[in-house]
Amino acid sequence: MARPAKLPDAPPQPAEPVGRDALRALILEKAGRIVAEEGLPAVQARRLAAEGNCAVGTLYNIFGDRDGLILAVNRETMADLGRPLEAARKAAAGGPLETRLLALALAYTAFALQNRNRWLAVFEFRLPDDAALPADFEAERARLLSLLEETIGPDVANAAQRRIAARALFGAAHGILHLAVNNRLSDFDAGAVEREIRFIVKAAAAGMLKRA
Amino acid sequence: MARPAKLPDAPPQPAEPVGRDALRALILEKAGRIVAEEGLPAVQARRLAAEGNCAVGTLYNIFGDRDGLILAVNRETMADLGRPLEAARKAAAGGPLETRLLALALAYTAFALQNRNRWLAVFEFRLPDDAALPADFEAERARLLSLLEETIGPDVANAAQRRIAARALFGAAHGILHLAVNNRLSDFDAGAVEREIRFIVKAAAAGMLKRA
Repeated sequence: MARPAKLPDAPPQPAEPVGRDALRALILEKAGRIVAEEGLPAVQARRLAAEGNCAVGTLYNIFGDRDGLILAVNRETMADLGRPLEAARKAAAGGPLETRLLALALAYTAFALQNRNRWLAVFEFRLPDDAALPADFEAERARLLSLLEETIGPDVANAAQRRIAARALFGAAHGILHLAVNNRLSDFDAGAVEREIRFIVKAAAAGMLKRA
Repeated sequence: MARPAKLPDAPPQPAEPVGRDALRALILEKAGRIVAEEGLPAVQARRLAAEGNCAVGTLYNIFGDRDGLILAVNRETMADLGRPLEAARKAAAGGPLETRLLALALAYTAFALQNRNRWLAVFEFRLPDDAALPADFEAERARLLSLLEETIGPDVANAAQRRIAARALFGAAHGILHLAVNNRLSDFDAGAVEREIRFIVKAAAAGMLKRA
Protein backbone atom coordinates (compact mmCIF):
# COMPACT_ATOMS: atom_id res chain seq x y z
CA MET A 1 0.00 0.00 0.00
CA ALA A 2 1.18 3.56 -0.60
CA ARG A 3 2.95 5.27 2.29
CA PRO A 4 0.35 7.26 4.26
CA ALA A 5 0.56 11.03 4.24
CA LYS A 6 2.56 12.41 7.17
CA LEU A 7 0.36 12.16 10.22
CA PRO A 8 -0.27 15.31 12.23
CA ASP A 9 1.67 15.50 15.48
CA ALA A 10 -0.19 13.69 18.22
CA PRO A 11 -1.80 16.08 20.67
CA PRO A 12 0.59 16.71 23.60
CA GLN A 13 0.19 14.08 26.32
CA PRO A 14 -0.46 15.38 29.81
CA ALA A 15 2.64 15.03 32.05
CA GLU A 16 0.78 12.46 34.15
CA PRO A 17 -2.02 10.14 33.10
CA VAL A 18 -5.42 11.55 33.93
CA GLY A 19 -6.55 10.06 37.21
CA ARG A 20 -3.12 9.37 38.76
CA ASP A 21 -3.88 11.61 41.73
CA ALA A 22 -7.31 10.05 42.03
CA LEU A 23 -5.81 6.55 41.87
CA ARG A 24 -3.21 7.46 44.49
CA ALA A 25 -5.94 8.75 46.79
CA LEU A 26 -8.06 5.65 46.19
CA ILE A 27 -5.18 3.28 46.94
CA LEU A 28 -4.31 5.20 50.11
CA GLU A 29 -7.92 5.10 51.27
CA LYS A 30 -8.13 1.35 50.71
CA ALA A 31 -4.75 0.76 52.32
CA GLY A 32 -5.78 2.83 55.34
CA ARG A 33 -8.90 0.75 55.72
CA ILE A 34 -6.91 -2.48 55.50
CA VAL A 35 -4.52 -1.26 58.20
CA ALA A 36 -7.46 -0.25 60.39
CA GLU A 37 -9.30 -3.55 60.01
CA GLU A 38 -6.47 -6.06 59.61
CA GLY A 39 -3.21 -4.38 60.60
CA LEU A 40 -0.13 -3.34 58.69
CA PRO A 41 1.06 -6.79 57.49
CA ALA A 42 -2.15 -7.14 55.46
CA VAL A 43 -1.10 -4.25 53.22
CA GLN A 44 0.24 -5.93 50.10
CA ALA A 45 0.78 -4.41 46.66
CA ARG A 46 -0.91 -7.18 44.71
CA ARG A 47 -4.08 -7.00 46.79
CA LEU A 48 -4.25 -3.20 46.61
CA ALA A 49 -3.68 -3.17 42.87
CA ALA A 50 -6.55 -5.63 42.48
CA GLU A 51 -8.83 -3.58 44.73
CA GLY A 52 -7.79 -0.39 42.97
CA ASN A 53 -8.30 -2.03 39.60
CA CYS A 54 -4.83 -1.09 38.40
CA ALA A 55 -1.64 -2.95 37.53
CA VAL A 56 0.86 -3.71 40.30
CA GLY A 57 3.39 -1.85 38.15
CA THR A 58 1.22 1.25 38.20
CA LEU A 59 1.01 1.06 41.98
CA TYR A 60 4.81 0.77 42.28
CA ASN A 61 5.12 3.62 39.81
CA ILE A 62 3.12 5.81 42.18
CA PHE A 63 4.58 4.65 45.51
CA GLY A 64 8.02 3.30 44.63
CA ASP A 65 7.77 0.11 46.66
CA ARG A 66 5.84 -1.36 49.61
CA ASP A 67 7.83 0.77 52.06
CA GLY A 68 6.87 3.86 50.09
CA LEU A 69 3.24 2.79 50.14
CA ILE A 70 3.28 2.26 53.91
CA LEU A 71 4.98 5.59 54.53
CA ALA A 72 2.28 7.25 52.43
CA VAL A 73 -0.45 5.51 54.44
CA ASN A 74 1.25 6.57 57.67
CA ARG A 75 1.53 10.13 56.43
CA GLU A 76 -2.23 10.14 55.78
CA THR A 77 -2.76 8.98 59.35
CA MET A 78 -0.57 11.78 60.64
CA ALA A 79 -2.52 14.29 58.51
CA ASP A 80 -5.77 12.88 59.91
CA LEU A 81 -4.36 13.30 63.44
CA GLY A 82 -3.51 16.91 62.68
CA ARG A 83 -7.16 17.89 62.32
CA PRO A 84 -8.46 17.12 65.85
CA LEU A 85 -5.17 18.41 67.27
CA GLU A 86 -5.57 21.73 65.46
CA ALA A 87 -9.23 21.90 66.56
CA ALA A 88 -8.21 21.25 70.18
CA ARG A 89 -5.48 23.87 69.97
CA LYS A 90 -7.95 26.46 68.63
CA ALA A 91 -10.57 25.60 71.25
CA ALA A 92 -8.12 25.99 74.14
CA ALA A 93 -6.20 28.98 72.73
CA GLY A 94 -5.90 31.82 75.20
CA GLY A 95 -6.42 29.52 78.17
CA PRO A 96 -3.76 28.64 80.72
CA LEU A 97 -0.84 26.37 79.79
CA GLU A 98 -2.27 23.31 81.52
CA THR A 99 -5.60 23.65 79.71
CA ARG A 100 -3.91 24.12 76.34
CA LEU A 101 -1.60 21.13 76.80
CA LEU A 102 -4.34 18.90 78.18
CA ALA A 103 -6.57 19.70 75.20
CA LEU A 104 -3.86 18.46 72.82
CA ALA A 105 -2.95 15.45 74.96
CA LEU A 106 -6.56 14.28 75.25
CA ALA A 107 -7.20 14.86 71.54
CA TYR A 108 -4.11 12.76 70.79
CA THR A 109 -5.30 10.05 73.15
CA ALA A 110 -8.77 9.99 71.62
CA PHE A 111 -7.35 9.72 68.11
CA ALA A 112 -5.00 6.91 69.10
CA LEU A 113 -7.72 4.89 70.81
CA GLN A 114 -10.27 5.45 68.02
CA ASN A 115 -7.76 4.67 65.25
CA ARG A 116 -5.62 2.16 67.08
CA ASN A 117 -4.21 0.09 64.23
CA ARG A 118 -3.51 3.06 61.99
CA TRP A 119 -1.88 4.91 64.88
CA LEU A 120 0.24 1.92 65.89
CA ALA A 121 1.34 1.53 62.27
CA VAL A 122 2.91 5.00 62.34
CA PHE A 123 5.12 3.99 65.28
CA GLU A 124 5.78 0.38 64.46
CA PHE A 125 6.84 0.59 60.83
CA ARG A 126 10.59 0.66 60.47
CA LEU A 127 12.57 1.62 57.39
CA PRO A 128 15.95 0.03 56.72
CA ASP A 129 18.69 1.95 58.56
CA ASP A 130 20.16 3.42 55.40
CA ALA A 131 16.86 4.62 53.97
CA ALA A 132 15.79 8.24 54.22
CA LEU A 133 12.27 9.34 55.03
CA PRO A 134 10.39 11.05 52.22
CA ALA A 135 10.34 14.84 52.49
CA ASP A 136 6.56 15.00 52.77
CA PHE A 137 6.60 12.54 55.66
CA GLU A 138 9.23 14.60 57.50
CA ALA A 139 7.21 17.73 56.79
CA GLU A 140 4.08 16.21 58.32
CA ARG A 141 6.04 15.14 61.40
CA ALA A 142 7.54 18.62 61.76
CA ARG A 143 4.10 20.19 61.35
CA LEU A 144 2.68 18.13 64.23
CA LEU A 145 5.60 18.99 66.51
CA SER A 146 5.28 22.68 65.59
CA LEU A 147 1.65 22.56 66.63
CA LEU A 148 2.79 21.54 70.11
CA GLU A 149 5.60 24.12 70.18
CA GLU A 150 3.09 26.85 69.27
CA THR A 151 0.76 25.61 72.00
CA ILE A 152 3.54 25.89 74.58
CA GLY A 153 4.55 29.15 72.89
CA PRO A 154 4.08 32.07 75.20
CA ASP A 155 5.04 30.14 78.35
CA VAL A 156 8.55 29.14 77.26
CA ALA A 157 10.33 32.11 75.76
CA ASN A 158 13.48 30.36 74.55
CA ALA A 159 12.93 28.61 71.20
CA ALA A 160 15.45 25.83 71.89
CA GLN A 161 13.84 25.14 75.28
CA ARG A 162 10.43 25.15 73.64
CA ARG A 163 11.63 22.49 71.21
CA ILE A 164 12.94 20.32 74.05
CA ALA A 165 9.71 20.82 75.96
CA ALA A 166 7.58 19.87 72.95
CA ARG A 167 9.57 16.69 72.28
CA ALA A 168 9.53 15.75 75.96
CA LEU A 169 5.81 16.41 76.44
CA PHE A 170 4.92 14.52 73.29
CA GLY A 171 7.19 11.63 74.31
CA ALA A 172 5.56 11.58 77.72
CA ALA A 173 1.95 11.42 76.51
CA HIS A 174 2.87 9.02 73.74
CA GLY A 175 4.79 6.74 76.10
CA ILE A 176 1.91 6.47 78.55
CA LEU A 177 -0.52 5.74 75.72
CA HIS A 178 1.71 3.29 73.84
CA LEU A 179 2.49 1.25 76.96
CA ALA A 180 -1.22 1.11 77.78
CA VAL A 181 -2.36 0.07 74.31
CA ASN A 182 0.26 -2.68 74.32
CA ASN A 183 -0.75 -3.85 77.81
CA ARG A 184 2.78 -3.33 79.06
CA LEU A 185 2.09 -2.24 82.65
CA SER A 186 -1.21 -4.06 83.02
CA ASP A 187 -4.28 -4.96 81.00
CA PHE A 188 -5.58 -2.00 79.03
CA ASP A 189 -7.58 0.44 81.15
CA ALA A 190 -8.82 3.61 79.42
CA GLY A 191 -9.57 5.27 82.77
CA ALA A 192 -6.04 4.70 84.00
CA VAL A 193 -4.61 6.09 80.75
CA GLU A 194 -6.58 9.29 81.13
CA ARG A 195 -5.61 9.66 84.79
CA GLU A 196 -1.93 9.18 83.92
CA ILE A 197 -2.09 11.63 81.01
CA ARG A 198 -3.83 14.21 83.19
CA PHE A 199 -1.26 13.66 85.92
CA ILE A 200 1.79 14.23 83.73
CA VAL A 201 0.34 17.23 81.87
CA LYS A 202 -0.86 18.93 85.05
CA ALA A 203 2.40 18.29 86.90
CA ALA A 204 4.62 19.31 83.98
CA ALA A 205 2.61 22.47 83.25
CA ALA A 206 2.70 23.51 86.89
CA GLY A 207 6.43 22.81 87.03
CA MET A 208 7.10 24.72 83.81
CA LEU A 209 5.38 27.80 85.16
CA LYS A 210 7.03 27.50 88.56
CA ARG A 211 10.49 27.37 87.06
CA ALA A 212 9.93 29.96 84.33
CA MET B 1 16.10 -69.15 83.98
CA ALA B 2 14.61 -68.96 87.48
CA ARG B 3 12.63 -65.84 88.39
CA PRO B 4 14.96 -63.39 90.10
CA ALA B 5 14.40 -62.57 93.74
CA LYS B 6 12.27 -59.49 94.29
CA LEU B 7 14.41 -56.46 93.55
CA PRO B 8 14.77 -53.86 96.26
CA ASP B 9 12.84 -50.63 95.62
CA ALA B 10 14.83 -48.30 93.44
CA PRO B 11 16.24 -45.36 95.38
CA PRO B 12 13.83 -42.37 95.13
CA GLN B 13 14.51 -40.25 92.01
CA PRO B 14 15.08 -36.51 92.60
CA ALA B 15 11.98 -34.48 91.57
CA GLU B 16 14.08 -32.78 88.84
CA PRO B 17 17.14 -34.04 87.02
CA VAL B 18 20.36 -32.72 88.53
CA GLY B 19 21.50 -29.68 86.53
CA ARG B 20 18.09 -28.49 85.32
CA ASP B 21 18.51 -25.13 87.06
CA ALA B 22 22.02 -24.86 85.70
CA LEU B 23 20.82 -25.71 82.19
CA ARG B 24 18.01 -23.17 82.46
CA ALA B 25 20.50 -20.48 83.50
CA LEU B 26 22.87 -21.45 80.69
CA ILE B 27 20.15 -21.31 78.04
CA LEU B 28 18.95 -17.93 79.34
CA GLU B 29 22.48 -16.55 79.27
CA LYS B 30 23.01 -17.70 75.69
CA ALA B 31 19.58 -16.47 74.61
CA GLY B 32 20.26 -13.07 76.20
CA ARG B 33 23.51 -12.81 74.30
CA ILE B 34 21.79 -13.72 71.01
CA VAL B 35 19.16 -11.03 71.60
CA ALA B 36 21.86 -8.50 72.41
CA GLU B 37 23.96 -9.29 69.35
CA GLU B 38 21.37 -10.31 66.77
CA GLY B 39 17.94 -9.29 68.04
CA LEU B 40 14.92 -11.23 69.20
CA PRO B 41 14.06 -13.07 65.94
CA ALA B 42 17.41 -14.89 66.15
CA VAL B 43 16.29 -16.68 69.29
CA GLN B 44 15.27 -20.13 68.10
CA ALA B 45 14.82 -23.30 70.15
CA ARG B 46 16.84 -25.56 67.89
CA ARG B 47 19.86 -23.26 67.93
CA LEU B 48 19.74 -22.79 71.68
CA ALA B 49 19.39 -26.49 72.33
CA ALA B 50 22.46 -27.10 70.17
CA GLU B 51 24.43 -24.36 71.93
CA GLY B 52 23.25 -25.65 75.29
CA ASN B 53 24.09 -29.20 74.31
CA CYS B 54 20.65 -30.47 75.20
CA ALA B 55 17.65 -31.87 73.34
CA VAL B 56 15.07 -29.45 71.94
CA GLY B 57 12.54 -31.43 73.96
CA THR B 58 14.45 -30.70 77.14
CA LEU B 59 14.43 -27.00 76.32
CA TYR B 60 10.68 -27.03 75.74
CA ASN B 61 10.29 -29.01 78.94
CA ILE B 62 11.97 -26.16 80.83
CA PHE B 63 10.39 -23.19 79.02
CA GLY B 64 7.14 -24.54 77.61
CA ASP B 65 7.50 -23.05 74.14
CA ARG B 66 9.37 -20.27 72.33
CA ASP B 67 7.09 -17.64 73.86
CA GLY B 68 7.92 -18.99 77.30
CA LEU B 69 11.61 -18.86 76.47
CA ILE B 70 11.40 -15.24 75.31
CA LEU B 71 9.39 -14.20 78.37
CA ALA B 72 12.08 -15.78 80.52
CA VAL B 73 14.81 -13.90 78.65
CA ASN B 74 12.85 -10.67 79.02
CA ARG B 75 12.37 -11.31 82.71
CA GLU B 76 16.15 -11.68 83.09
CA THR B 77 16.56 -8.32 81.36
CA MET B 78 14.09 -6.76 83.77
CA ALA B 79 15.98 -8.28 86.71
CA ASP B 80 19.23 -6.89 85.29
CA LEU B 81 17.59 -3.46 85.01
CA GLY B 82 16.52 -3.67 88.64
CA ARG B 83 20.09 -3.59 89.89
CA PRO B 84 21.23 -0.17 88.61
CA LEU B 85 17.77 1.21 89.43
CA GLU B 86 18.04 0.01 93.01
CA ALA B 87 21.60 1.39 93.23
CA ALA B 88 20.41 4.77 91.91
CA ARG B 89 17.52 4.79 94.34
CA LYS B 90 19.86 4.10 97.27
CA ALA B 91 22.37 6.71 96.15
CA ALA B 92 19.71 9.43 95.89
CA ALA B 93 17.68 8.41 98.94
CA GLY B 94 17.01 11.30 101.29
CA GLY B 95 17.52 13.88 98.56
CA PRO B 96 14.77 16.04 97.08
CA LEU B 97 12.10 14.54 94.82
CA GLU B 98 13.64 15.84 91.60
CA THR B 99 17.04 14.35 92.46
CA ARG B 100 15.53 10.99 93.40
CA LEU B 101 13.42 10.77 90.23
CA LEU B 102 16.24 11.97 87.98
CA ALA B 103 18.58 9.33 89.42
CA LEU B 104 16.13 6.60 88.44
CA ALA B 105 15.32 8.11 85.05
CA LEU B 106 18.97 8.48 84.08
CA ALA B 107 19.80 4.97 85.33
CA TYR B 108 16.91 3.64 83.20
CA THR B 109 18.16 5.62 80.20
CA ALA B 110 21.72 4.36 80.63
CA PHE B 111 20.55 0.75 80.88
CA ALA B 112 18.35 1.07 77.79
CA LEU B 113 21.10 2.63 75.70
CA GLN B 114 23.78 0.17 76.88
CA ASN B 115 21.49 -2.87 76.42
CA ARG B 116 19.45 -1.66 73.51
CA ASN B 117 18.37 -4.90 71.87
CA ARG B 118 17.59 -6.67 75.14
CA TRP B 119 15.66 -3.63 76.36
CA LEU B 120 13.71 -3.29 73.11
CA ALA B 121 12.86 -7.00 73.28
CA VAL B 122 11.04 -6.47 76.57
CA PHE B 123 8.73 -3.92 74.95
CA GLU B 124 8.40 -5.37 71.50
CA PHE B 125 7.55 -8.97 72.26
CA ARG B 126 3.84 -9.60 72.16
CA LEU B 127 1.98 -12.60 73.50
CA PRO B 128 -1.24 -13.79 71.82
CA ASP B 129 -4.22 -11.87 73.22
CA ASP B 130 -5.59 -14.85 75.11
CA ALA B 131 -2.31 -15.79 76.75
CA ALA B 132 -1.53 -14.88 80.34
CA LEU B 133 1.84 -13.62 81.51
CA PRO B 134 3.76 -15.96 83.78
CA ALA B 135 3.50 -15.07 87.47
CA ASP B 136 7.25 -14.50 87.82
CA PHE B 137 7.22 -12.06 84.90
CA GLU B 138 4.34 -10.10 86.44
CA ALA B 139 6.16 -10.13 89.78
CA GLU B 140 9.29 -8.64 88.21
CA ARG B 141 7.23 -5.94 86.51
CA ALA B 142 5.45 -5.12 89.78
CA ARG B 143 8.79 -5.00 91.61
CA LEU B 144 10.17 -2.41 89.19
CA LEU B 145 7.05 -0.23 89.46
CA SER B 146 7.16 -0.50 93.26
CA LEU B 147 10.72 0.77 93.17
CA LEU B 148 9.45 3.94 91.51
CA GLU B 149 6.46 4.22 93.86
CA GLU B 150 8.82 3.97 96.85
CA THR B 151 11.04 6.63 95.31
CA ILE B 152 8.10 9.00 94.97
CA GLY B 153 6.95 7.80 98.39
CA PRO B 154 7.07 10.61 100.91
CA ASP B 155 6.04 13.31 98.42
CA VAL B 156 2.70 11.80 97.40
CA ALA B 157 0.80 10.68 100.47
CA ASN B 158 -2.11 8.97 98.75
CA ALA B 159 -1.24 5.43 97.63
CA ALA B 160 -3.58 5.46 94.62
CA GLN B 161 -2.14 8.79 93.47
CA ARG B 162 1.37 7.44 93.97
CA ARG B 163 0.52 4.52 91.70
CA ILE B 164 -0.81 6.85 88.99
CA ALA B 165 2.25 9.06 89.37
CA ALA B 166 4.63 6.09 89.07
CA ARG B 167 2.94 4.75 85.94
CA ALA B 168 2.80 8.22 84.39
CA LEU B 169 6.43 9.08 85.19
CA PHE B 170 7.66 5.72 83.93
CA GLY B 171 5.56 6.09 80.78
CA ALA B 172 6.95 9.56 80.24
CA ALA B 173 10.64 8.61 80.53
CA HIS B 174 10.07 5.41 78.58
CA GLY B 175 8.19 7.20 75.82
CA ILE B 176 10.92 9.79 75.31
CA LEU B 177 13.56 7.05 75.22
CA HIS B 178 11.64 4.63 73.01
CA LEU B 179 10.83 7.31 70.41
CA ALA B 180 14.47 8.37 70.36
CA VAL B 181 15.90 4.86 70.00
CA ASN B 182 13.49 4.23 67.14
CA ASN B 183 14.37 7.55 65.46
CA ARG B 184 10.74 8.58 65.53
CA LEU B 185 11.11 12.36 66.03
CA SER B 186 14.52 12.65 64.39
CA ASP B 187 17.77 10.76 64.03
CA PHE B 188 18.97 9.41 67.37
CA ASP B 189 20.65 12.05 69.53
CA ALA B 190 21.76 10.98 73.01
CA GLY B 191 22.17 14.59 74.12
CA ALA B 192 18.62 15.45 73.12
CA VAL B 193 17.29 12.37 74.95
CA GLU B 194 19.00 13.42 78.15
CA ARG B 195 17.77 17.02 77.84
CA GLU B 196 14.20 15.81 77.28
CA ILE B 197 14.36 13.36 80.21
CA ARG B 198 15.77 16.06 82.49
CA PHE B 199 13.08 18.47 81.30
CA ILE B 200 10.15 16.18 82.04
CA VAL B 201 11.48 14.98 85.40
CA LYS B 202 12.33 18.47 86.61
CA ALA B 203 9.03 19.94 85.45
CA ALA B 204 6.92 17.08 86.80
CA ALA B 205 8.74 17.02 90.16
CA ALA B 206 8.34 20.78 90.55
CA GLY B 207 4.67 20.53 89.61
CA MET B 208 4.06 17.62 92.00
CA LEU B 209 5.47 19.58 94.91
CA LYS B 210 3.64 22.76 93.91
CA ARG B 211 0.31 21.01 93.85
CA ALA B 212 0.83 18.79 96.89
